[in-house]
Amino acid sequence: MRVLLIHAKRFIYRTRMKAIPEAEDINGVQGEGSFENALVVFTTVESRDTSNPKEVVETAAKDIVEIASKVGAKTIVVYPYAHLSQKLAPPHQAKNILAMLELEIKKLASDKFEVSRAPFGWYKEFELHCHGHPLSELSRNYEAKTTARVEVKK
Amino acid sequence: MRVLLIHAKRFIYRTRMKAIPEAEDINGVQGEGSFENALVVFTTVESRDTSNPKEVVETAAKDIVEIASKVGAKTIVVYPYAHLSQKLAPPHQAKNILAMLELEIKKLASDKFEVSRAPFGWYKEFELHCHGHPLSELSRNYEAKTTARVEVKK
Ligand SMILES: [Mg+2]
Ligand SMILES: [Mg+2]
Repeated sequence: MRVLLIHAKRFIYRTRMKAIPEAEDINGVQGEGSFENALVVFTTVESRDTSNPKEVVETAAKDIVEIASKVGAKTIVVYPYAHLSQKLAPPHQAKNILAMLELEIKKLASDKFEVSRAPFGWYKEFELHCHGHPLSELSRNYEAKTTARVEVKK
Repeated sequence: MRVLLIHAKRFIYRTRMKAIPEAEDINGVQGEGSFENALVVFTTVESRDTSNPKEVVETAAKDIVEIASKVGAKTIVVYPYAHLSQKLAPPHQAKNILAMLELEIKKLASDKFEVSRAPFGWYKEFELHCHGHPLSELSRNYEAKTTARVEVKK
């Protein structure tokens, strides 16, 4: 799992159209969001994450909550983003793992942060205002320790 | 070289503070920029790019100009971004290769696009408004074909 964490003064998104057939159903779910003082977690679920999603999600959630605390964000937004890796997980698994990540963050820190998740598989318009302080742009690579073997193919 | 290409309705950046000692001197150079209808090229120069920078830069510039034409952007902004790879080139080389990329894009297409480059090595505040159409977010991996061997270490 690769993430790009942006501490944003403001973040707004709106779904535009389905990008893939497996796009998340947004009837009744938020097709748009608007946030101030948010940690936006642009997240790419990778194929290797499917071998132990629980551990990857726990590792990621713990770190994300720590970073959100450090920067003083009010909200954490899990934002599906397929552009941070070339080794994507299959869409239905990526969708599930992103939902697990949202739940795990809520489990750890719903008393401290609002936690939101943007729908998977949609083209989205967005407006992002990044603070620019030293911790306002971070990238992370999360993996399960119990996945001993990491295949790297190019 | 890894890039994330965002077709932006609007893109604004301002330098905040030096991130590394090798930060680009911005006396006389633009410490801020404001653009409408821009293709923003978030660019990570990787260590392997240093073995044949000329070819990587030519490959990248050609593709970037094609994408800018396709989306109908008015401006191309080369934006240094260290967060798209874990195998970064040494800063002084990354800085040079980014400058080469700007020049190559200008060489190919200064008649069609305004071409700008944000300074290397600075923490920057930015505002980005991504269109959200299917070509408004793309990622690319450029490499020199004459670099036969690709080392992948984790
Ligand atoms: Mg996307
Ligand atoms: Mg940066």
